[in-house]
Amino acid sequence: MTLSKNKIRAITALSKKKERDEAGLFLAEGGKLVSDLLPAFHCRTLVCTSSFMEEHPHTKAEETILAEKEEIAKASLLQSPPSALAVFEKPRHAIDKGRIAKHLTLALDTIQDPGNLGTIIRVADWFGIEDIICSLETADVYNPKVVQATMGAIARVRVHYAELDRFLQENEEVPTYGTFLDGKNIYEQELTPNGIIVMGNEGNGISDKIGKLIQRRLFIPNYPTGRATSESLNVAMATGIVCSEFRRRVL
Amino acid sequence: MTLSKNKIRAITALSKKKERDEAGLFLAEGGKLVSDLLPAFHCRTLVCTSSFMEEHPHTKAEETILAEKEEIAKASLLQSPPSALAVFEKPRHAIDKGRIAKHLTLALDTIQDPGNLGTIIRVADWFGIEDIICSLETADVYNPKVVQATMGAIARVRVHYAELDRFLQENEEVPTYGTFLDGKNIYEQELTPNGIIVMGNEGNGISDKIGKLIQRRLFIPNYPTGRATSESLNVAMATGIVCSEFRRRVL
Repeated sequence: MTLSKNKIRAITALSKKKERDEAGLFLAEGGKLVSDLLPAFHCRTLVCTSSFMEEHPHTKAEETILAEKEEIAKASLLQSPPSALAVFEKPRHAIDKGRIAKHLTLALDTIQDPGNLGTIIRVADWFGIEDIICSLETADVYNPKVVQATMGAIARVRVHYAELDRFLQENEEVPTYGTFLDGKNIYEQELTPNGIIVMGNEGNGISDKIGKLIQRRLFIPNYPTGRATSESLNVAMATGIVCSEFRRRVL
Repeated sequence: MTLSKNKIRAITALSKKKERDEAGLFLAEGGKLVSDLLPAFHCRTLVCTSSFMEEHPHTKAEETILAEKEEIAKASLLQSPPSALAVFEKPRHAIDKGRIAKHLTLALDTIQDPGNLGTIIRVADWFGIEDIICSLETADVYNPKVVQATMGAIARVRVHYAELDRFLQENEEVPTYGTFLDGKNIYEQELTPNGIIVMGNEGNGISDKIGKLIQRRLFIPNYPTGRATSESLNVAMATGIVCSEFRRRVL
């Protein structure tokens, strides 16, 4: 198998959301990332060097194309060509109400920056959060930049897209949390081992429509209180700190 | 005053560390950022639109050049031209041993990514950490990308460069902390209100040389313990979580 022009075109087209949606596919690049994702997703096309193949002899892909790095570079979106890139089928995760009721879930209200989304998925993975519900306006998890930024965590965290207000209404028996600039000191609030934690947009925070559906309003206090400081924490950072505080209570 | 070719060249040259070091200057771009930094640093040259000037009538700069955005674009490193850019003198902060002894200080052992450094400064500001000691191999805080990523926090946090082993030896009466993959659960350790928190390089963590000088080895436990997860947290994220945990104890 060689890397034909058509194949190269089909791979690089996956940088566009429309193409990913129509094909139901996404692209991952880099030897480490590809080898982390291979056991988790169905691989349509694996393009890799022979040395990658030797290191990972048991990889399963519908089609495997061995190529030199210079050849791989033609299909790569990265600045320096990776030893492997792979086209995977997007998984179809159903939202499991039973799991949402018992576990900690993140809900993202219009996170727009791909880097932030990737970082949030990575920190969710660290703290054992297995489901993330994204509003329909949130960045696409299958954007190659997001896939990259998750550092493989996408293999372990299920990311769903849904109308967030409806999702919250359908799960209203589950405790809901969100961070607000006028929320209550998170360190002093009771935090349940299960619940839905809503994180808001980079510039505007949680929208009013979603805010109304949140029972428990939290705030990460700055220090010392009242001192002039940055206006807010970056949303990925805030997510990490909130998750850490939830897990501290049960560890 | 107009924006001469020489002036444009002098401004854009500040994207290079060598030029910044020789001139003792740095560049900040964007209306919000520039207005945040103007009260904190001595401004050599302010280039801005007349509407920026109207909104900030009391700005102090040795030289102010009014220009249209299209003109500013020529001196800008950003993709879309800002309403203001400014050349500031680098501040000269001395390390104050008395302050290090009493407060919480961050020490960075070779943080290489400008975005990480900027994010760390921003989260330090949120948690009231006023001094950051960087190893000489750490990214330059006056790199325009770092200045940008701090979102103005650089106006409130003093960033120093020093030989980190010497700094730790000279302050050995101050409790030292660091995060290590084999460290102890941070949630269960005694944390002092003062101390030096060392954070390590993106790929390699804290170097052996520096690690030997750290008394208290911490770890942010993943959840549930023992589950397969990402290999580590991003260093900026880990810094935020550690700072949050230190501050929680005293709030």
